[in-house]
Amino acid sequence: MNEEITLFSVPRMPLIQLGDDLAQLIVEKMTNAGQELQSGDILVIAQKVVSKAEGRLVRLAGVTPGEQALELAEITGKDPHVVQVILDDSHEVVRARRGLLIVEQKSGWVCAHGGMDRSNVQPVDGEEMVALLPENSDASAARLRTRLADLTGAQVAVLISDSHGRPWKFGTMGVCIGCAGIPPLWNQRGLHDLFGYELVASEECIVDELAGAAALLMGQSSEGRPVVVIRGYTPPDVPAAPATSIQRPKEFDVFR
Amino acid sequence: MNEEITLFSVPRMPLIQLGDDLAQLIVEKMTNAGQELQSGDILVIAQKVVSKAEGRLVRLAGVTPGEQALELAEITGKDPHVVQVILDDSHEVVRARRGLLIVEQKSGWVCAHGGMDRSNVQPVDGEEMVALLPENSDASAARLRTRLADLTGAQVAVLISDSHGRPWKFGTMGVCIGCAGIPPLWNQRGLHDLFGYELVASEECIVDELAGAAALLMGQSSEGRPVVVIRGYTPPDVPAAPATSIQRPKEFDVFR
Repeated sequence: MNEEITLFSVPRMPLIQLGDDLAQLIVEKMTNAGQELQSGDILVIAQKVVSKAEGRLVRLAGVTPGEQALELAEITGKDPHVVQVILDDSHEVVRARRGLLIVEQKSGWVCAHGGMDRSNVQPVDGEEMVALLPENSDASAARLRTRLADLTGAQVAVLISDSHGRPWKFGTMGVCIGCAGIPPLWNQRGLHDLFGYELVASEECIVDELAGAAALLMGQSSEGRPVVVIRGYTPPDVPAAPATSIQRPKEFDVFR
Repeated sequence: MNEEITLFSVPRMPLIQLGDDLAQLIVEKMTNAGQELQSGDILVIAQKVVSKAEGRLVRLAGVTPGEQALELAEITGKDPHVVQVILDDSHEVVRARRGLLIVEQKSGWVCAHGGMDRSNVQPVDGEEMVALLPENSDASAARLRTRLADLTGAQVAVLISDSHGRPWKFGTMGVCIGCAGIPPLWNQRGLHDLFGYELVASEECIVDELAGAAALLMGQSSEGRPVVVIRGYTPPDVPAAPATSIQRPKEFDVFR
């Protein structure tokens, strides 16, 4: 039973560059702010800074749109270069309409633009760069978790978050696309309710709830707060698993 | 800029009955626990207790399944009485498959079973009752907000939450189906990123992020913690609106 949770952002994170030791920067900025990582903390890190540290950037002008990209650009009204970048990082186009391009990104996430993003990416030599998702966000989370343990001794969970839209509702929300040290799902099947009724279909995606909570502190424009610490939340006592384990296989997807 | 948020649950909430003054019970239990509502707090209340207080319960055995319910029961493998209750509270069946019945509930929410729920509902005279969503969750939230202000003087926001599944991912998460005193969406279009790039498609659904965060403290089985207070979150300075304003109209829905 979790009775109280606190979330706080790590202040003054610098712009992240290829090769930056993200874990070390986080520890340094936390120390400067009088904060300290504790075992049991859950660190939520915006995908964008992980992608930057890993160099998952593409120079838009260097991309040559192929036939499919030109067609989809026509349908969606989007820049054909942008569309080509999205296609190169995707398995499948799920929906294309004016103003909308939803794909299954190579890691398996179904989302607009496959998570590709133009905002908050520093131009290089005056040329626009776009950011892709980390190649394997679960592996990135695991590396960051190990590095944080090496630096601080604290056993934390790490979540990598992105913002996804939803089919039936306006607005995006923070979701988890990679994690380490935490079970993404809390399976409550077989537990009983207050009147002894057995729960048959209760499985809660706690990592999306955690990522959504962290997004409340991140903002998406010029806030520069890509790292949030969640303290006081005890996950269910089941083995940790990668975030990809929450992906519904296509054969169980009734909306594709 | 929100730098720190705290969430805590209200302990020892009793079983809620038709006609209960939910706001008064919340204030009473908070007082007993040494907690106090403050202006600016966001109160997240599980739909189930609101539905119970409003008497949105149906005696399952008293329902006679019609032709459509019998057909859908066959397809889904669900109890025809349950299916009839769902149909009676819905506009439209969105998807029906073995083990799955997704509808647009009368308030406009697209979700499994139209939010109807069998768990944590007290039997009456030994007969099973199921709970529907509140008739108008935004109105329920507004009433609770007014009553809380009358009782405590605190100007709070009220969210009514439910658990919804997602098409491409396993697990449910807490979402907002009714709210008062808070804008559901934070429209960041026109704001600029760290490099002056204008955000063109950023609209964040903060009420779903808040409801998801609160769900981390609620549990879904026998925890009996249906009320969570979120403290320290300052919503964007735009007018409050009902949660129904986040519903994507059917003509913009590319997945139906």
